[in-house]
Amino acid sequence: MSLPSPVWRDGAPHPPGEIFAREIHEQPTALLSLLEHEREYAALARTIAERAPALIRFVGHGSSDNAATYGVYAFGLLPRLTTVRDSLSLSVYYEAALDFSSSVVLALSQSGRTPDVVEYVERARARGAFTVALTNETGSELEQAADTTLPLAAGPEWAVAATKTYVNQLAALALLAGGIAGRGPELADGVRSTAELLSRALPAFEAGVRPIAASFAYVGRMYAIGRGLEYATAREVALKLTETCRIAAEPLTATGLAHGPVAALDSLFPVWTIASRDPSLPAVIEAATRVRDAGATLVASGSAADEIDAPYVLPVPAAPTPLLAPLLSVVPGQLFAAALSQTKGYDADRPEGLNKVTIAR
Amino acid sequence: MSLPSPVWRDGAPHPPGEIFAREIHEQPTALLSLLEHEREYAALARTIAERAPALIRFVGHGSSDNAATYGVYAFGLLPRLTTVRDSLSLSVYYEAALDFSSSVVLALSQSGRTPDVVEYVERARARGAFTVALTNETGSELEQAADTTLPLAAGPEWAVAATKTYVNQLAALALLAGGIAGRGPELADGVRSTAELLSRALPAFEAGVRPIAASFAYVGRMYAIGRGLEYATAREVALKLTETCRIAAEPLTATGLAHGPVAALDSLFPVWTIASRDPSLPAVIEAATRVRDAGATLVASGSAADEIDAPYVLPVPAAPTPLLAPLLSVVPGQLFAAALSQTKGYDADRPEGLNKVTIAR
Repeated sequence: MSLPSPVWRDGAPHPPGEIFAREIHEQPTALLSLLEHEREYAALARTIAERAPALIRFVGHGSSDNAATYGVYAFGLLPRLTTVRDSLSLSVYYEAALDFSSSVVLALSQSGRTPDVVEYVERARARGAFTVALTNETGSELEQAADTTLPLAAGPEWAVAATKTYVNQLAALALLAGGIAGRGPELADGVRSTAELLSRALPAFEAGVRPIAASFAYVGRMYAIGRGLEYATAREVALKLTETCRIAAEPLTATGLAHGPVAALDSLFPVWTIASRDPSLPAVIEAATRVRDAGATLVASGSAADEIDAPYVLPVPAAPTPLLAPLLSVVPGQLFAAALSQTKGYDADRPEGLNKVTIAR
Repeated sequence: MSLPSPVWRDGAPHPPGEIFAREIHEQPTALLSLLEHEREYAALARTIAERAPALIRFVGHGSSDNAATYGVYAFGLLPRLTTVRDSLSLSVYYEAALDFSSSVVLALSQSGRTPDVVEYVERARARGAFTVALTNETGSELEQAADTTLPLAAGPEWAVAATKTYVNQLAALALLAGGIAGRGPELADGVRSTAELLSRALPAFEAGVRPIAASFAYVGRMYAIGRGLEYATAREVALKLTETCRIAAEPLTATGLAHGPVAALDSLFPVWTIASRDPSLPAVIEAATRVRDAGATLVASGSAADEIDAPYVLPVPAAPTPLLAPLLSVVPGQLFAAALSQTKGYDADRPEGLNKVTIAR
């Protein structure tokens, strides 16, 4: 994939951030494209189930690593498999002689060209792992290195900051985990309903984030907090804000906030909270109280946003199953990043110092 | 453990940050105290080696979780065991029915009272894990929940921000991993030499950080970057800066920096780099170049700090073995946090909104 095109296909120049915003809106369609590959996901799920792996190892950087954070829950809750977001350095730099013989590797790279992910897959495969590439590009180096490939099918993504590839990675992991647990069709139906819910919710999300972006024009530091399934969302929202708005936005678990970082908060240091109706909600509510006591401004998003006493509330419709909530709850964060980037006068399509394909080691 | 004492034992009031600074200086002594328990570590290492676990699961929050990041490398490189910094939420909130039967759990909590760590250990043990508590307090709830306990032996820690308990956690993990690999005495000798090196290096570290603290008085945002073994150091330095200096300081892997966050850097957003002489050094040097190109100010610390073209360089002596480097390379960061906290007029001993024992869920 080349650098984002500076003009639309019709040759007209486009305003800054338009590609990023458009791709956020393409997410329901991207989810439906993924579902066209339901059979491939079901077949690979059977292969993995037959291997009965002791461990699922995820590798990826940036948004892909955030999706892996979600994968830990999808695989832990559906087929009840133990997973690890594995250390790339241990294998790639230190050449540690670990036993991969009962492991399945899921390598996440939107471009399929992240160098240390490709190297890791080569080494893990040589040591006996069954390796799967999850990528949005065909014919990539990662595809060549892995035993097999699953398509993300999000369509071309031109903005540097990932949106639809991230949401499709979540859906792909849910589909695969569901398939291994013998619940593939149920999850596919869930993803289909989620795409529809998202499509209907987008206008309200967009209207909701606009006034917050206007108020946050001078914000330079933020935390994003979530727990359990929604920690992935906290990570991804923080990354979008860092990339497109140049905010020092750190993701924290609701509980991690209390173990130090709460000390840095003040009235100019707002906190984005993801509160979804699931068993980890009490921890998030407790953390929100701590944020308020520290004098920081709260934004509450998620299906249980109304349970947080916050000046800014962005309700998110309940997902067909709590496991799919992160596919919806990340979207207000993406749209907020788009709106705030515009307010700050940046181009969300092409952030400073970033390329679409990261070849950094 | 109660709140930090506002006066020294002689009854005289103490200046802000004095306890934090004193405990940083107590670290060589704390390491030698740990070594008095070498036999207990050797015995438990034999027990674990005999069980031949498929997986080591670490749990902890804050500094303890940062120490677990180091544990991934200590256990991967010495006994070549696969490890995971496990999800607490999956077991505690979602009650996922995972298979713990071939797992060893190492639960890290300085106080032994972190609620979800205690709950996790109870559940993991009920599901067949062999559970070990690593704690600095005797008679804690965590000790009662676990199969067995190893002492951190760092002595009482009064400052809210952990220092000597963190360095002793690293040493404890290295000793245990070394013992499982049949190299316990070699690692114990290494920790002993490291304590001596640290004792001799402290005055130079202290002199080195002072001018940087003076220049950074108005800094509000920082990144701390490391790779491999030193990623734990990046996490711990960032946490100290957040807790004691109220800086939004985010830890990143050298490679993770390129996957988005580099876009936020500018001349008022400095980056603390840990560059140690080990196989991941090229990735750190590449990241440092990227930071410089973004116009951000670099601080280079570590045994290979001189290989980074940075306006501020804090050399760290080479550890007896690269595996022990993080025990030394965190200390300039701790001392910098102490100095900067003083410059900013904060009390590093008792940061806003924090207690020594975090009982947050």
